[in-house]
Amino acid sequence: MSDKKTIAVLGGTGKEGGGLALRWAHAGHMVIIGSRTAERAEEGAAEMRSTLGDTAKVRGLANLDAAAAADIVVLSVPFSGQQATVQEVAPALAGKILIDVTVPLVPPKVSRVQLPEGGSAVEAVQKLLGAGVRVVSAFQNISAHHLTKLDVDVECDVLVCADDPAAAEEVVELAHEIGLVAWNAGPLCNSVVAEGLTSVLIALNRRYKVPGAGIRLTGLPRQ
Amino acid sequence: MSDKKTIAVLGGTGKEGGGLALRWAHAGHMVIIGSRTAERAEEGAAEMRSTLGDTAKVRGLANLDAAAAADIVVLSVPFSGQQATVQEVAPALAGKILIDVTVPLVPPKVSRVQLPEGGSAVEAVQKLLGAGVRVVSAFQNISAHHLTKLDVDVECDVLVCADDPAAAEEVVELAHEIGLVAWNAGPLCNSVVAEGLTSVLIALNRRYKVPGAGIRLTGLPRQ
Repeated sequence: MSDKKTIAVLGGTGKEGGGLALRWAHAGHMVIIGSRTAERAEEGAAEMRSTLGDTAKVRGLANLDAAAAADIVVLSVPFSGQQATVQEVAPALAGKILIDVTVPLVPPKVSRVQLPEGGSAVEAVQKLLGAGVRVVSAFQNISAHHLTKLDVDVECDVLVCADDPAAAEEVVELAHEIGLVAWNAGPLCNSVVAEGLTSVLIALNRRYKVPGAGIRLTGLPRQ
Repeated sequence: MSDKKTIAVLGGTGKEGGGLALRWAHAGHMVIIGSRTAERAEEGAAEMRSTLGDTAKVRGLANLDAAAAADIVVLSVPFSGQQATVQEVAPALAGKILIDVTVPLVPPKVSRVQLPEGGSAVEAVQKLLGAGVRVVSAFQNISAHHLTKLDVDVECDVLVCADDPAAAEEVVELAHEIGLVAWNAGPLCNSVVAEGLTSVLIALNRRYKVPGAGIRLTGLPRQ
């Protein structure tokens, strides 16, 4: 069991980030909702406290302040805002783990895999930040809808990719703490699969008329 | 149930292609093993007949002759030989389904996703062949080891990608006939995920010391 950490979720007022933040707060972590303005962030935090009860340690701050106050920073913003948000918070990330949840969806064709030039979106983030930030890719395939229902067993495994194996293990553990099964899926470049898989799952949802397809890994030692 | 087809497996003397050929022959299809030489192909076919019994309809031909004699052509060659094989057999493919099983592995780092310039390997094949060939991507993630054991339930779903939905459905059905669960995962560009996933599965095999990790899709109507 890891110690309780302070986790900032940038884009934590959105569905996916909000679902992750809710579950980490529920697991006892100190959570900071990050948003473009402190007001919007605090609104999101207040809503979360009303769901979880007043003992929940959730507050809201503007993205840069949220990142500065956290041990671990989670990036869950639309693809179109990914680079700008990373550039804004970069000064607060030195030595920290940055968990990138961004899915490179290109509306309106979100059921088509449309990867950025040069591979995965997260590799561009690592390049922008340099080796001093421990960038990890994870959680792209988890339905936000499932995350917000705290009593639901999420039927989707998490692929964790990172060039820093110790950072990957920390994120695997953070996933376990919120009831998710997670696997160290190799180096950061392997994130292409996790990033693209979300579009494949959207295509499957449409084709088979289901709300939330997911994946389970097989042949691995499930605990 | 589809009618029994004549299926040519180019690279059918290899492990993955051989496994698929074995299962289709076992399911009652006429199978042609394709290889660079007719001699090598017939050796592979003879081996398969000795496994399945003399009633099995398996023969061997050089790749171009195999493709010409088949209703459906399966391409299962090493990535380094993919383009040359496609160019060789192109004259025999007009109007047919070509199932591309190729995984763009770049030795020695086969546990790193290393996609070709411009996205998936199969899109380059479709471009080379033009719209007159019904190119479908499938089976990249199925362990050859599991395929060759006819009594083994393969614990890995098949992602089928194609720009021609009717062709995708035919391949989904061909997968069902050999005991595999398969899903129409969207257009050909979505094959990036299936092609990259093999490297992720190799990374997981190494990290967790297992012989054959796979995936199951969840949240979909399994039959």
